[in-house]
Amino acid sequence: MKKILLLLLLTSQIAWTQSKQDSVQFRELANEIMVNGEAYENLRELTQSIGNRISGSVGYDKATVWAEKKLKEAGADKVWLQETFVPVWVRGKETLKLKTQNGKWEDLNFLSLGNSEGTNGKDVEGEVIMVNTLGEFDKLSEKEVKDKIVFFNYRFRQDFITTFDGYSDAVLYRSVAAVKVAEKGGKFAMIRSVSTGVDDVPHTGTMRYNEQIQKIPAIAIGNQTADRLEHLTKSGKIYLKLNSNCGMKEEIINYNVIGEIKGKDDKIIVAGAHLDSWDVGEGAHDDGAGVVQVIEILRTFKKLGIQPNHTLRFICYANEENGARGGEKYAEEAKRKNENHLFALESDAGGFSPRGFSLDMPLNKIKEIQAWKPLFLPYGTYDINKGYGGVDIHPLGRLLQTPLAGLIPDSQRYFDIHHTAADTFDKVNKRELQLGATVMAQLIYMIDKNW
Amino acid sequence: MKKILLLLLLTSQIAWTQSKQDSVQFRELANEIMVNGEAYENLRELTQSIGNRISGSVGYDKATVWAEKKLKEAGADKVWLQETFVPVWVRGKETLKLKTQNGKWEDLNFLSLGNSEGTNGKDVEGEVIMVNTLGEFDKLSEKEVKDKIVFFNYRFRQDFITTFDGYSDAVLYRSVAAVKVAEKGGKFAMIRSVSTGVDDVPHTGTMRYNEQIQKIPAIAIGNQTADRLEHLTKSGKIYLKLNSNCGMKEEIINYNVIGEIKGKDDKIIVAGAHLDSWDVGEGAHDDGAGVVQVIEILRTFKKLGIQPNHTLRFICYANEENGARGGEKYAEEAKRKNENHLFALESDAGGFSPRGFSLDMPLNKIKEIQAWKPLFLPYGTYDINKGYGGVDIHPLGRLLQTPLAGLIPDSQRYFDIHHTAADTFDKVNKRELQLGATVMAQLIYMIDKNW
Repeated sequence: MKKILLLLLLTSQIAWTQSKQDSVQFRELANEIMVNGEAYENLRELTQSIGNRISGSVGYDKATVWAEKKLKEAGADKVWLQETFVPVWVRGKETLKLKTQNGKWEDLNFLSLGNSEGTNGKDVEGEVIMVNTLGEFDKLSEKEVKDKIVFFNYRFRQDFITTFDGYSDAVLYRSVAAVKVAEKGGKFAMIRSVSTGVDDVPHTGTMRYNEQIQKIPAIAIGNQTADRLEHLTKSGKIYLKLNSNCGMKEEIINYNVIGEIKGKDDKIIVAGAHLDSWDVGEGAHDDGAGVVQVIEILRTFKKLGIQPNHTLRFICYANEENGARGGEKYAEEAKRKNENHLFALESDAGGFSPRGFSLDMPLNKIKEIQAWKPLFLPYGTYDINKGYGGVDIHPLGRLLQTPLAGLIPDSQRYFDIHHTAADTFDKVNKRELQLGATVMAQLIYMIDKNW
Repeated sequence: MKKILLLLLLTSQIAWTQSKQDSVQFRELANEIMVNGEAYENLRELTQSIGNRISGSVGYDKATVWAEKKLKEAGADKVWLQETFVPVWVRGKETLKLKTQNGKWEDLNFLSLGNSEGTNGKDVEGEVIMVNTLGEFDKLSEKEVKDKIVFFNYRFRQDFITTFDGYSDAVLYRSVAAVKVAEKGGKFAMIRSVSTGVDDVPHTGTMRYNEQIQKIPAIAIGNQTADRLEHLTKSGKIYLKLNSNCGMKEEIINYNVIGEIKGKDDKIIVAGAHLDSWDVGEGAHDDGAGVVQVIEILRTFKKLGIQPNHTLRFICYANEENGARGGEKYAEEAKRKNENHLFALESDAGGFSPRGFSLDMPLNKIKEIQAWKPLFLPYGTYDINKGYGGVDIHPLGRLLQTPLAGLIPDSQRYFDIHHTAADTFDKVNKRELQLGATVMAQLIYMIDKNW
């Protein structure tokens, strides 16, 4: 009995000492990032000197050179580019005009949805039918839709507390509107933006075609324009005239940019974010924030002289927004080379105050990470539960069964600016951005130490 | 044994049913506030139509009329004004000029600290000594300080994760700088603003005098100007010239504005925030946000037809910023009338995403509220611990032993804009503001039901 008690005491003493050491290391990581952090100034460069950087653009090429330089400056033992073919979607010039029954044509604020075909520079004009839901649309006959323009006036549900739930709910309209309308012979599809905003900012983002169905244009208008059109359609007929030049070009090669700290063994831990963005705004929260956080973790490990057990890879992924080819390519290569990926962490939900991690891994591993909650709590990070890792690391889970985690920042503001011209550097707060990098660095530290 | 088991089963069944009912009520409160909420539009009115509203100003008078009207529109059974004398501090015109040894005078961006005396419109000029800490200052002799201007270059500590900890640490300089410098015969005191900002925005806020020591002016400069002066003092002598007209006027009467929902009994639950602000910016986060949240709770209870057990009072307090007389007066009157105050909740830490409540009450009551955590967690509110309630409700705790609670919003952005010209409506996010009102309404609901 005495021996058992002694053993228990010893075990709990060891656990306490380790947890004490971890909390000291957590504090050191936080001090370095919160006080000497370079993430914010790096983001200023990426967003304001380079700007937006859709796959295949000159902006993406510049971002590639920039990321390679930054990973080297942060102290990577090795930096390399990994090539992947990417789709190239180009917006070009686009106009949308509105007319009421007896009115004159006036310009509206809008964006073509990403990957959408345009009108080839010709005017496409027609009467507008408004529906509030897909259910309403499905009740319309082909005759009612033929040659019409369909306005899907579905509102982002503000009753969801986590805005990603509202996004998952509303994004269906962005995805399927064009196919639905084309099936019934309509001219083009228009959606109320997938947006929590109280403003008139239109939100782009990918839409999907069905190869068996005619590819008609799909566009989005901001909430205020949508409110106005909703009002107008109730008091009479309205007409829209779209002229757009967007469309897909030939695929070309872009690059994942990868930096590495060599570990004591060859097992690999990944921290990743995507370097591409949509073609409007500056891609500041989506996902410049994630990119500079990933680079910041590398810099911090090097600055503090932390020698990891495993090899740490910091990946700036290509083409998350309209193809997800970068993430796919990385995982395929990892599988081909038979690399052992212990863990992958992604930041692609904005540079806001962190609140947790969503874990896509077996339950025993989830429980192991949940046991570290007391260490994370002083950093405002408490929501550590089963969930989705992220688009770019997802193929690692699928092909290599790698345990995945996604940073969960506060979600309240994200869908005000997501995929818009308003996703700019000034929307990012320095401390929030740094705190996100801090908890990511802490999680990488714990995984490296314990797995 | 069977009886005990049955009793246990019954008890747990009742607990489960109640918790289920509570979570349904939580959801209804959230739906009303997140979907139909009026807090954001009310804040737009208060900040953009009325603007800043320091005690004794025309702005405060307008805000009083506005709050009375809003509480009535929200459905209060009764609305009244409670008078209190308040200090009147007026800024007037102020300029600060800088000169290096061989340079010309140039204007600097700055603010006199609140309650500070000015220079009576005369130029007060002198050489600048910079110290980084009070410790450094204390080592200076009277001779070294006499007729000088002392620049306290103390930086906000960014290593604190909760910025209120950084504020508590740095605010000492704002409070004591003038007295310290006056004791050694300096001309005026200047501080690096108590600010997390990466910008040049100067932050005002109260300073204190000692009646036994000469009242010299105290001013604040923004972080960028402070960085520049720090650099300049290292390469040579610099001089400042202050001309200001600020100072205290005669006290006058202002009003707390109080709305009430009558309960089944006369016991009282308070939700409060302060209606006054500093004299720059719009007082949007500080504390327009709190005011509109408090009004929103009233509106929501009435809209949902919730008949409270106890009387609910919604208080827009006068004079929090530079005297705290409104809170003092309310508590004194409550004591005089022998009112029974069950609980008071304050929102005065910005309209950001809520994270918890800090509880200033006996341990058994803290534990009772902590037991409700699972109900609050879906609303991102997890940090429910012992702490400070708030300036305006504090006297209720002191005089009536009322249990107190303060809303804890995410603190990362608050001290970028606190007490500045940049504390404007556009800094407040609609969903964050509403979510704060939601969890406050939920807590009021639980207290009313259970206490």
